Amino acid sequence: MIVRQGKYTLKLTTHPSIIGNAAVAGKTEGEGPLKNEFDRVFSDDTLGEPSFEKAESALQREAILRALDKAGKTPSDIDYILAGDLLNQCIGTSFGIREFGIPFLGLYGACSTMALSLGLASVLVEAEAARTAIASTSSHYCSAERQFRQPLEYGGQRPQTAQRTATAAGASLVSAHRQNKPSVAAVTFGKIMDLGIKDANNMGAAMAPAAAETISAFFEDTATNPDDYDLVLTGDLGKVGSSLVLDLLQKDHNLDIAKLHNDCGLLIYDLEKQDVHAGGSGCGCAGSVFNSYILRRLQSGELKRVLLVATGALLSPTSTLQGESIPSIAHAVLIEAPQKPSGGTQ
Amino acid sequence: MIVRQGKYTLKLTTHPSIIGNAAVAGKTEGEGPLKNEFDRVFSDDTLGEPSFEKAESALQREAILRALDKAGKTPSDIDYILAGDLLNQCIGTSFGIREFGIPFLGLYGACSTMALSLGLASVLVEAEAARTAIASTSSHYCSAERQFRQPLEYGGQRPQTAQRTATAAGASLVSAHRQNKPSVAAVTFGKIMDLGIKDANNMGAAMAPAAAETISAFFEDTATNPDDYDLVLTGDLGKVGSSLVLDLLQKDHNLDIAKLHNDCGLLIYDLEKQDVHAGGSGCGCAGSVFNSYILRRLQSGELKRVLLVATGALLSPTSTLQGESIPSIAHAVLIEAPQKPSGGTQ
Repeated sequence: MIVRQGKYTLKLTTHPSIIGNAAVAGKTEGEGPLKNEFDRVFSDDTLGEPSFEKAESALQREAILRALDKAGKTPSDIDYILAGDLLNQCIGTSFGIREFGIPFLGLYGACSTMALSLGLASVLVEAEAARTAIASTSSHYCSAERQFRQPLEYGGQRPQTAQRTATAAGASLVSAHRQNKPSVAAVTFGKIMDLGIKDANNMGAAMAPAAAETISAFFEDTATNPDDYDLVLTGDLGKVGSSLVLDLLQKDHNLDIAKLHNDCGLLIYDLEKQDVHAGGSGCGCAGSVFNSYILRRLQSGELKRVLLVATGALLSPTSTLQGESIPSIAHAVLIEAPQKPSGGTQ
Repeated sequence: MIVRQGKYTLKLTTHPSIIGNAAVAGKTEGEGPLKNEFDRVFSDDTLGEPSFEKAESALQREAILRALDKAGKTPSDIDYILAGDLLNQCIGTSFGIREFGIPFLGLYGACSTMALSLGLASVLVEAEAARTAIASTSSHYCSAERQFRQPLEYGGQRPQTAQRTATAAGASLVSAHRQNKPSVAAVTFGKIMDLGIKDANNMGAAMAPAAAETISAFFEDTATNPDDYDLVLTGDLGKVGSSLVLDLLQKDHNLDIAKLHNDCGLLIYDLEKQDVHAGGSGCGCAGSVFNSYILRRLQSGELKRVLLVATGALLSPTSTLQGESIPSIAHAVLIEAPQKPSGGTQ
């Protein structure tokens, strides 16, 4: 049963479980701190495909196939796939999944897609609209650069506030509660925030207010406090946005989450050693970090309660050229360790 | 309660109601057969905005505000807005709704968005995840032409199979069942179909197989036949796709819906008198036709059971340039007249 809690939060009383998950990544991501966490690292970012867009589709397909396989499922066992990506008309997703024959709910949440898809898949399972649903997303550095900024061949310099779109994909299979699997306990879908930031090379700053809004709404709705959680994991705020979200929560909401906060955009790369400016971004960043490093630690019980807060910047190159500011959004999903953790890695 | 019926269909046992709806349209649409059906017709397709993209945002905002007003609601009464459009990164939607402060589930279903958003909003209300949710979408001839084909200034000729993207938006407010309002009885979310059609100027043909697949799945799942319905309303197949979907249903599924079929792309324009080639398309086409002409006739009881089957082509200009075929999708929503129809127009 779904119980509305407070103004924005949905409590999923049966705790749908994540029964399978996978994350795949490109070369640079595979050289970062999570290199041993991913299910597969591709040394060639083209994945042997003739275009970067097709490579991104292949990446998302690979994550889904591996998640299915790890759960012992095939596409015909799945009621819905909820997915999206950053590419125009979400072709990373539609071409990646078209062969599966699974009813498809297309989402657009920019880099918030992993939380949006996981949250909505969990709601559908809780409501018994779905027995098993896939939540997935992808991004690709090269397809994103040429669509949102400049083609790589141009060799443009980016400021230090810019983040690197991760070449990565992640997929979760959500199904009815199982005692030995991590489960989804609550979902808070966010609203659009726009504080007037216009610098498309500083997405972290644009997205931080949305993250702060959703995180504070979650704490208020659930009448809990930071001590009740092991980790608040924002998606893709990077270095600039991470520091900003902590400030905003402290200042506007009197919430101190500094000790339990981390960010997918900081985890996926080594910011000291890799040339990634302010950290990672892109739907696949939160998608792959959550579906590898984080879920593995939830599975083992090392992490007990994690609030995943993936953030998205709802701009387009057109809106930026037309002088618009950057509307942002953040969705939160509370994931808990199994009642009987496996005690080891998956 | 949501009951899975057959392989793909969700039966919504309490029948969430559409408690408010509105449709707004541009000049050409306002000169068509439905001119007196729309809540507002804009004689200037810019709506006074400095760009066509901003005009599209204003159009969607207007439809939502009017639907809210007709239901006696304000944005703060709404739990979720489910919406999307055709523009890159769905900026028609995000910039149109950003001021509302309503939690936002961004969707991408191309021209299937009205059925996707209405279906999902109804599921959320049925599951008690939402008390009231908005489903909305928009499209704009001028923003779509320059993004998907050529800027209007180029003056390119289009073949007779091409459809005209409607400048229009529609919004529905879904809430708990009310005896005096049309209600949603079932939803069938579709899967991606791709029969290899590559002509981006013949979307109707590309989308017809997806429509046939979803319609036949609905009839099979519900063990009903065409006589049980007044209207099967496809979204945006236009002249070519409409004729094709009837053939496919007859040939592959032995289903004859010719007598009860119509298409939003055929209803919105006068194909004889208006220069619209094969008819209308765009998210706003199904969005505006459904939220005006169709819901008015459901409200009055003139139509009793309508299956809305909005169809989307999940391509992008990039995928077309890369030689890809057009993956398509169709989602179906069954809407029924109120138990106590009002007997007149709204």
